[in-house]
Amino acid sequence: MDCYSGKNILITGGLGFLGLNLVRALLEQNAKIKILTHTLDPQPVGWLEEIRNGRQVEVCQGDIQNPVVIQEFLNGGDIVFNFAGRSGATKSLVDASQDMQTNIAGHLNILETLRKLQQYPRIIFVSSRLVYGVTGTQSVNESFPLNPTSIYGLHKLTAEHYYRLYFLHYGIPFTVVRLTNPYGPFQDPCRKDFGIVNRFIISAIQNGNLEIYGDGSQLRDYIYVEDATDALIRAAVATNGVNQIWNLGYGDSITLEEMANKIVKMVGSGNVRKVLWPSKAQKVETGDFRCDTSRIRSELNWRPKFQLDDGLFRTIEIYKNLLGKP
Amino acid sequence: MDCYSGKNILITGGLGFLGLNLVRALLEQNAKIKILTHTLDPQPVGWLEEIRNGRQVEVCQGDIQNPVVIQEFLNGGDIVFNFAGRSGATKSLVDASQDMQTNIAGHLNILETLRKLQQYPRIIFVSSRLVYGVTGTQSVNESFPLNPTSIYGLHKLTAEHYYRLYFLHYGIPFTVVRLTNPYGPFQDPCRKDFGIVNRFIISAIQNGNLEIYGDGSQLRDYIYVEDATDALIRAAVATNGVNQIWNLGYGDSITLEEMANKIVKMVGSGNVRKVLWPSKAQKVETGDFRCDTSRIRSELNWRPKFQLDDGLFRTIEIYKNLLGKP
Repeated sequence: MDCYSGKNILITGGLGFLGLNLVRALLEQNAKIKILTHTLDPQPVGWLEEIRNGRQVEVCQGDIQNPVVIQEFLNGGDIVFNFAGRSGATKSLVDASQDMQTNIAGHLNILETLRKLQQYPRIIFVSSRLVYGVTGTQSVNESFPLNPTSIYGLHKLTAEHYYRLYFLHYGIPFTVVRLTNPYGPFQDPCRKDFGIVNRFIISAIQNGNLEIYGDGSQLRDYIYVEDATDALIRAAVATNGVNQIWNLGYGDSITLEEMANKIVKMVGSGNVRKVLWPSKAQKVETGDFRCDTSRIRSELNWRPKFQLDDGLFRTIEIYKNLLGKP
Repeated sequence: MDCYSGKNILITGGLGFLGLNLVRALLEQNAKIKILTHTLDPQPVGWLEEIRNGRQVEVCQGDIQNPVVIQEFLNGGDIVFNFAGRSGATKSLVDASQDMQTNIAGHLNILETLRKLQQYPRIIFVSSRLVYGVTGTQSVNESFPLNPTSIYGLHKLTAEHYYRLYFLHYGIPFTVVRLTNPYGPFQDPCRKDFGIVNRFIISAIQNGNLEIYGDGSQLRDYIYVEDATDALIRAAVATNGVNQIWNLGYGDSITLEEMANKIVKMVGSGNVRKVLWPSKAQKVETGDFRCDTSRIRSELNWRPKFQLDDGLFRTIEIYKNLLGKP
């Protein structure tokens, strides 16, 4: 693709898990990249240095809720990948107001700022499978009813509607992807509140416990993060991606228990432990999830390149290296 | 009904249009009423004095976003009628952030406060037909897809989900009603941003223009406010009303043009004027709305007592009297 060369690409949450993976991919396309980050933690800053390898990436520090920061940051952007936010469905129950201020007010601030600037860059918003809530074992397409079980999922849903409305009223073009469970490089091991596969891999490498709540029979769809960012990069320049909501997942599910056992076997250490459900986690639990990815596959002509075992193998090698256990 | 005698009934937005109608009805049931109001405008304060007629109604002034105010206000309540909020779909586009702070953050503050107090009064939340968005001419039941066209409608939808989640996680019992267009006494003529029928009636009495945007062919469902408050009073004590969302309307629709002509004829003055759509109003316009009220009718054993002509006649008499034009 040549769509990114010389373009001003803005990434909020640019030092996060998705952000760093996207920066790496977009640097290969000669994009002019500017990221916004709330914090400058040493691990992701170090990763950014490695990735950019002398090439320029502009780094701004600030909060998406701050109108002054956001106005300065957004000015002149061609495409905005909007990854900033607070993660964690369980955590969102503990501090619902804080989740609201970041995951609702922050996005509204971005859209209101663009409206006032009268600038209309393409915005890619990463939503979550958690907007669906409890789905059972049927394959879930984008028309499935939306009944999130967590404040986090609800706020993702509200933010989706904000993007829809700002397109309807002001023509700000957006693409929403509802992401399933991504895994892969650039997840800071210091952060614990998301990324079950990465967390399992790190625990296994450290010969720790991989804790499964309940019986671990719930199906989940796991996607290697390079495949996810590849889809985002395509979605952001696809003419048929405007005013669209697409599921983004691998398109096949396995149980959490199978995943944990697979990781222990591939890593060669770690122990799978079944524990009782903590009550907060149980309340937001959505059970099985099977992702119907047929729309993004056909409309974006995209499909994942990494089969589960390939993706896990790469991820394990990366974190072994990081943790000094090769 | 004897369900209200001696009960602590809290009403947020208690000096508003719905609030005052509810206070009047509940005083007849010997409820202990405490209201919260953001402002103490002379007209509604005067109405409250008339209504209470020596009986006690406790009045607190404050904002639902203020945790200290809300904690003090909610403590010890048996039933909370939660009417506080910012009205106006068009206005919500002009100041989306302000709408968010009141209509989202305010409700979350109420629910978070109850969670922390560990008090679980029944909450009645008045949502809006505007959560549905554009529906066409088909009759809309509670399972209709939810795609609001305004920030106001979206925030009502988000608040509905808050109530659902706080029941799911903490057992705070709620009933949501999605109200169509109410009309009747106790709407302050100084406020212009809601209540199309009341606005038309007041304009007609003043021999002014009743402005219709476009051709006025859109169907709407109009309910006399006494019928609406009667339904709310029943819903709040119905055991089958917990964790329920009900449409609340008259159950029949007429066009806006028919309504305007009817009012001019009944009042005997005023002029119907068709004007071009203002662009903001056109963007949030939802077109026809036909309300399927079968669920609330059968599950609550409720039906409206006031036919349209009765309700309009009463309303016209009341505002003629108020405006000194008998």
